[in-house]
Amino acid sequence: MSNTNRQVKLARRPAPGPLSRDVFSIEDGPIPEPGPGQFRVKIEYISLDPAMRGWVSDGRSYVEPVAIGAVMRGYAAGHVEVSNHPDFKPGDAVQGLFGVQQYAVSDGKRVVKVDTNLAPLQRWVGGLGMPGWTAYFGLLEVGQPKPGETVVVSAAAGAVGSVVAQIAKLKGCRAVGIAGGPEKCRYLLDELGLDAAVDYKAGNLAADLQAACPQGIDVYFENVGGEILDTVLPLMNRFGRIPLCGLISAYNATTPPPGPRNLRSVLTQRLKIQGLIVFDWADRIDEAIRDLGKWYSEGKLKIREDVREGGLDAFPDVLNLLYTGGNHGKLVLKV
Amino acid sequence: MSNTNRQVKLARRPAPGPLSRDVFSIEDGPIPEPGPGQFRVKIEYISLDPAMRGWVSDGRSYVEPVAIGAVMRGYAAGHVEVSNHPDFKPGDAVQGLFGVQQYAVSDGKRVVKVDTNLAPLQRWVGGLGMPGWTAYFGLLEVGQPKPGETVVVSAAAGAVGSVVAQIAKLKGCRAVGIAGGPEKCRYLLDELGLDAAVDYKAGNLAADLQAACPQGIDVYFENVGGEILDTVLPLMNRFGRIPLCGLISAYNATTPPPGPRNLRSVLTQRLKIQGLIVFDWADRIDEAIRDLGKWYSEGKLKIREDVREGGLDAFPDVLNLLYTGGNHGKLVLKV
Repeated sequence: MSNTNRQVKLARRPAPGPLSRDVFSIEDGPIPEPGPGQFRVKIEYISLDPAMRGWVSDGRSYVEPVAIGAVMRGYAAGHVEVSNHPDFKPGDAVQGLFGVQQYAVSDGKRVVKVDTNLAPLQRWVGGLGMPGWTAYFGLLEVGQPKPGETVVVSAAAGAVGSVVAQIAKLKGCRAVGIAGGPEKCRYLLDELGLDAAVDYKAGNLAADLQAACPQGIDVYFENVGGEILDTVLPLMNRFGRIPLCGLISAYNATTPPPGPRNLRSVLTQRLKIQGLIVFDWADRIDEAIRDLGKWYSEGKLKIREDVREGGLDAFPDVLNLLYTGGNHGKLVLKV
Repeated sequence: MSNTNRQVKLARRPAPGPLSRDVFSIEDGPIPEPGPGQFRVKIEYISLDPAMRGWVSDGRSYVEPVAIGAVMRGYAAGHVEVSNHPDFKPGDAVQGLFGVQQYAVSDGKRVVKVDTNLAPLQRWVGGLGMPGWTAYFGLLEVGQPKPGETVVVSAAAGAVGSVVAQIAKLKGCRAVGIAGGPEKCRYLLDELGLDAAVDYKAGNLAADLQAACPQGIDVYFENVGGEILDTVLPLMNRFGRIPLCGLISAYNATTPPPGPRNLRSVLTQRLKIQGLIVFDWADRIDEAIRDLGKWYSEGKLKIREDVREGGLDAFPDVLNLLYTGGNHGKLVLKV
């Protein structure tokens, strides 16, 4: 173990399109010492999230972009090593926006102490972490599913989508997942117990989706955008809700793809499309952790990570898997 | 005065694109006699509404399409001639979905008795009729404008838009109208007293709109769709609301135009796009009539009709004015 802090920094603003490796620089700095009221975390797992594509880009968004030369923003989990903070002790397992690096210093703000007896540490940057909270508030607060309704989720095998689909089931809905390829679809049916799975790569999305939703669609939880949204819109029932959580199909596009042609359905069926960012429920995260943890401990919520080795040096390459569907389950980098 | 009832009937389903004259047939039938509990109305004014394009087309919508051979659906106003209904007396001025014809028989359901001392009859199919109710509920219930916010309206010189913009002013908002051409823009500023007017035909929509909305946009009341929506989206403030009332730019398109490319703004700014149809507030119409009537009588709500002569024979041609911006104010046909 070296006495340096390896860090992934943002070297330059990326051009539109996939992120090239030279957008990031990997540097070794000194291990930081916590000041008064602070503690140091040794990071073990880093969450790779589609939102990262936005965080490195200029342009209006919900948070400031990562500054050039700054450590890349990222959720991570690890253990407290040294603490001058009354609420955090060495050995505590914690999760927070610690950045893509080996060691971080924190004042404890927005840091969550996690229970590694309930679930292994990696799971707290996955389905029990930010992606799970996003699924929880996005579906329940924005989607407002009612028992007996049909809930469709895109990127249903992904970190957010898989939790959305399972919460929908827990709330008494018909849960239908859209995913790419037979393996992911089998996972949705056999492991997660969804009512139907639709493979968007099979080339027959509109008909397959219609067959999977004989009562139409009441809630469409959107992670993808593009053609999938356009295909879903005409199947939406009156007063349907569309929580807009992600548009991963567009993140690497050099020009934004055309939006949905079928907006007429939004009008005639009185649909609601509503964007959501989990930060808006920052003061209610404990609710999500309580319910997700309970469902998980009861075996009602299945969570799968796709943990990649290779340490921080592998970060730029592993990140790009997200935008090609190359991961299976929540993508996590082991430090 | 003849003793026949001239009627505009739907002769065939139209092809996509502008409505050709042969979509309708104009026929003379017998003057209908009211049965028990019914009354007969002599129609004087017929409302021409963008929604008519949808009513004659097949395909999923919020109401059944007009059947082939049936009288064209339409709001109209006139006076009761003969009545077997306890609540309606000969001479009563009424407004309702009487159809595009000279005489209609009604059971009084969803018929509104109107006060021609407050406003002339033609106004009750305009700003005090369905377009006004749509503006009222769409802005206040879906848009939820707060004092000091910026409200932008497209088709702002139109029947719905002009009322939306004025209600926004009455609620203490900055009201900005988008319209086509300098004459309509002058009307918005000089007659309706809006804070700014933007001419979308001037070729500089994005910059002009930004200049007109120095604090960004909180509510965008959408009547048009297409490029205007795309231009508005990046200017929307966080948690902005977009009541989707019409998509007139698409109604005559042979294929639906691409939707908004800038959906990313919906996500990052947590916008809400919500479709609305005034029928959903059918049991609250008296609220709209009460408030609109009050504002109108106090001189705070200006309403302008574009009344066309020519009778029912002119209906097909006059209707098409709506889709080219050829009208100025609520388009009404005098029977």
